[in-house]
Amino acid sequence: MAHSPSMNLGELAHYLGATLSHPEAAQVKVSGVATIEEATAAQVTFLSNSKYISKLEQCQAGAILVPEKFTTTAPMPLLHVAHPYLAFAKAIELFHPAPPPNQQIHPTAVLGSGVTLGQGVTIGAYVVIGDRVQLGDRVTIHPHCVIYDDAVVGNDCLLHSHVTLRERVQLGDRVILQNGVILGADGYGFVPMADGSHYKIPQVGTVVVEDDVEIQALSTIDRATLTETRIGAGSKVDNLVMVAHNCTIGKNAILCAQVGLAGSTHVGNNVILAGQVGAAGHLTIGDRSIASAKTGINNSLPPGSQVGGYPNMDQKLFLRVTAAVKQLPQLLRRFRALETQVETLKSQRPTQDNH
Amino acid sequence: MAHSPSMNLGELAHYLGATLSHPEAAQVKVSGVATIEEATAAQVTFLSNSKYISKLEQCQAGAILVPEKFTTTAPMPLLHVAHPYLAFAKAIELFHPAPPPNQQIHPTAVLGSGVTLGQGVTIGAYVVIGDRVQLGDRVTIHPHCVIYDDAVVGNDCLLHSHVTLRERVQLGDRVILQNGVILGADGYGFVPMADGSHYKIPQVGTVVVEDDVEIQALSTIDRATLTETRIGAGSKVDNLVMVAHNCTIGKNAILCAQVGLAGSTHVGNNVILAGQVGAAGHLTIGDRSIASAKTGINNSLPPGSQVGGYPNMDQKLFLRVTAAVKQLPQLLRRFRALETQVETLKSQRPTQDNH
Amino acid sequence: MAHSPSMNLGELAHYLGATLSHPEAAQVKVSGVATIEEATAAQVTFLSNSKYISKLEQCQAGAILVPEKFTTTAPMPLLHVAHPYLAFAKAIELFHPAPPPNQQIHPTAVLGSGVTLGQGVTIGAYVVIGDRVQLGDRVTIHPHCVIYDDAVVGNDCLLHSHVTLRERVQLGDRVILQNGVILGADGYGFVPMADGSHYKIPQVGTVVVEDDVEIQALSTIDRATLTETRIGAGSKVDNLVMVAHNCTIGKNAILCAQVGLAGSTHVGNNVILAGQVGAAGHLTIGDRSIASAKTGINNSLPPGSQVGGYPNMDQKLFLRVTAAVKQLPQLLRRFRALETQVETLKSQRPTQDNH
Repeated sequence: MAHSPSMNLGELAHYLGATLSHPEAAQVKVSGVATIEEATAAQVTFLSNSKYISKLEQCQAGAILVPEKFTTTAPMPLLHVAHPYLAFAKAIELFHPAPPPNQQIHPTAVLGSGVTLGQGVTIGAYVVIGDRVQLGDRVTIHPHCVIYDDAVVGNDCLLHSHVTLRERVQLGDRVILQNGVILGADGYGFVPMADGSHYKIPQVGTVVVEDDVEIQALSTIDRATLTETRIGAGSKVDNLVMVAHNCTIGKNAILCAQVGLAGSTHVGNNVILAGQVGAAGHLTIGDRSIASAKTGINNSLPPGSQVGGYPNMDQKLFLRVTAAVKQLPQLLRRFRALETQVETLKSQRPTQDNH
Repeated sequence: MAHSPSMNLGELAHYLGATLSHPEAAQVKVSGVATIEEATAAQVTFLSNSKYISKLEQCQAGAILVPEKFTTTAPMPLLHVAHPYLAFAKAIELFHPAPPPNQQIHPTAVLGSGVTLGQGVTIGAYVVIGDRVQLGDRVTIHPHCVIYDDAVVGNDCLLHSHVTLRERVQLGDRVILQNGVILGADGYGFVPMADGSHYKIPQVGTVVVEDDVEIQALSTIDRATLTETRIGAGSKVDNLVMVAHNCTIGKNAILCAQVGLAGSTHVGNNVILAGQVGAAGHLTIGDRSIASAKTGINNSLPPGSQVGGYPNMDQKLFLRVTAAVKQLPQLLRRFRALETQVETLKSQRPTQDNH
Repeated sequence: MAHSPSMNLGELAHYLGATLSHPEAAQVKVSGVATIEEATAAQVTFLSNSKYISKLEQCQAGAILVPEKFTTTAPMPLLHVAHPYLAFAKAIELFHPAPPPNQQIHPTAVLGSGVTLGQGVTIGAYVVIGDRVQLGDRVTIHPHCVIYDDAVVGNDCLLHSHVTLRERVQLGDRVILQNGVILGADGYGFVPMADGSHYKIPQVGTVVVEDDVEIQALSTIDRATLTETRIGAGSKVDNLVMVAHNCTIGKNAILCAQVGLAGSTHVGNNVILAGQVGAAGHLTIGDRSIASAKTGINNSLPPGSQVGGYPNMDQKLFLRVTAAVKQLPQLLRRFRALETQVETLKSQRPTQDNH
């Protein structure tokens, strides 16, 4: 385990660009980070959401990363910073430096012909790399990855164990693939035949993953039938997600765990698909759209849509519908009672009215 | 990357059994296939769905695969064929021939005792094959597959990287397993104990996969408790699908991505389960049934059923229900208004009626 | 394939602590176990659920495991036992003994520095084990597992092929991991930035799996951001399940296939989450709660809750709602008719009432 470095609050403030509320505390040593509930006097925590302010009273942290101009009666030193949550992430980096890759090619790695390797590449045990694969500078490939022929991996990519890149898959720079990710397996394309069988359509396209994408464990992005399935720069894909052939995902999109997209659907920039969302094929999901958990998207969405339910509806309507649906059994009873009352009223109508 | 062969339209028509509308174009060279929107003059495309006819006007393709007797004012050569979509799939095969397997056993492959190998078998780096495994002719096994003892693989099977076949799993002929597929892991079977713990029931059955099945990336078919879990001939299973122990799937079934079947459920022939469908255990889903996306099937279905929703209902009813449910908040308001009106009417009844 | 031992009913009764109803049958040989429908005269079956009593008439089994004091007119020998289903599981163990592990370190296994191995450890081909990893006694690791630095594996653990344990992951005793399980991949944590990008929060915590847990194929438990994601003793996790960072699962919980938990959700003891259930983050799901299939849990649940639907509601209400919702299209029609009738009644009010 990497040792957490120790430093004093003055050094930490300098590193994070923070202002220390109690200059006399600059020499106080801290050696780690923790949540607001769990931090000890030797640890730093953060407060960015005002709903947790009440936790400050019990907080034992040695210092707290807080927004500029934040004030409190709590006694511990504050580290004022423009973006406390970001500063907290950087503090984690500082106290938990990743062990440096060894920049070696393990002797058991199998490299095909015509492979090109950048500077400072690390390749783990039993990695198999096909012909003409290109690996950029500072690429780290953990044991048991398999890279098929003609794949291209940009600079500073990190592939965890058991990742597969199929033939001709292209990764940009700084792509992170967690364990077991599969990029470029065949799309699910078959011609339905008159006898009920299915004739396989060769999937000869590929997958392109742009810069700064992270794809988490056991997700799978299928190769396109003819062209490319594309994941846009900065997008983050959680575990067990399925992106079908010919889909395109825009930039900085968020696909939460167990999302599934059917073929040829286009997801815009900054879209958020929450957990277990599914989308039908051949749709366009406009930029900045948000689908709440388990939404089934079955029609295209204009930019900025917020949807829920299946079939998808406006999120506000969905919330009203789900509140209303709980009243449905009672509504049915009251409706039948009302029908009876109306029948009674009808039978009681003054007969002269009909004359 | 495999080079796309080039040929002229006369040769292509001959190969596909097509009739060329403009015999004078027989010498025109084409070198690939593309969609109707993207095809260039050197590429062939296809039209099988009449809703895309309007795209013909903009189409730049060198030739178009169309149904017999199809006519158009568009100027490019037509290739008349009985089944344009099938012909297109075959044209992709023609222009993108798969690289031939090298028919070698990689020196790092570990083979157990008593393994039998057919003719022309290809085994990639670091493949591990247990004792008494049988591999048929022309089997191709990509790197990092693990085959446990006593498994049987038929002729012309293709296993991509990181596939696992557990003990005694049987594959028919021409089975394709995409990357990371796991066949025959233990079923989820436990005896509930009085103290709340769960006693594992040994899963000593197996999985049988019949001819011409394709299973896509990261899907998992569990072994039966005692007998066999079976995937019928010609069925196609998409990514991240879960088939539990003791299930049987009929012939030519379609299980789309992220479908999950609980234990001992029987799926008939030609059934289609769309994405993210779940089915409870111990059900029978009749032949040719179709479940729309995200359906939760919790009772058995007669042949030819079309269902949606959860709990599943007839698909037509489901569509009416999902349309109606959006009106529910408004209905509640109108209902309360109507109740008030009826109260008013009751209070206004002529008093003599009660005498 | 392991040979099934043969024994007589007297020996079997002795082993299972059962009482044989027909002492004269003690010498009858049996050689296996089967379901009540499929058992032959040489096989033993079981009856624990009274709804299957009618199947006894057709049953061909050589003997049946039944509850104490159970009586029947069926002629075959009965094996009276306190818990027939448990006895059946033990009979399967008896007739299908797992092949003993070879207790060897395969020469291709790569072990880091400072690895400690217990007694009787078995390590398969191409296993990669990082530095300072600790393996307890009688651990079995199948081919192609990858264990990162500083992981700890307790006694009698079984890891099937392609399992990954990330850095510092800890397994208790008797943990079973089916094929392709990934423990400790990075959690999905990012700081949203003003420009729409996402800044990765280092995930420096780990995963702790307590004693007697089984996790099935292709499930993934993410490491905590700072502390630990924990799976409590005796819990069983089915295939393709996603447990996000910082979650805790209590003891003896059941997470069925394709369940997904968002981050920092706490699941109590003896909870049952059926297939495809999803839970939002930062929730507490009380002990002994049960969520039916496909439930979307979006608020915390007190102990003993039974819920269904999305958003989750009480299971009994959910059943009434799902029955009522099917009547909604008809209700809308009847409601409009009733509105018309009330309008008519209003127009027919005796005019003198208003004077």
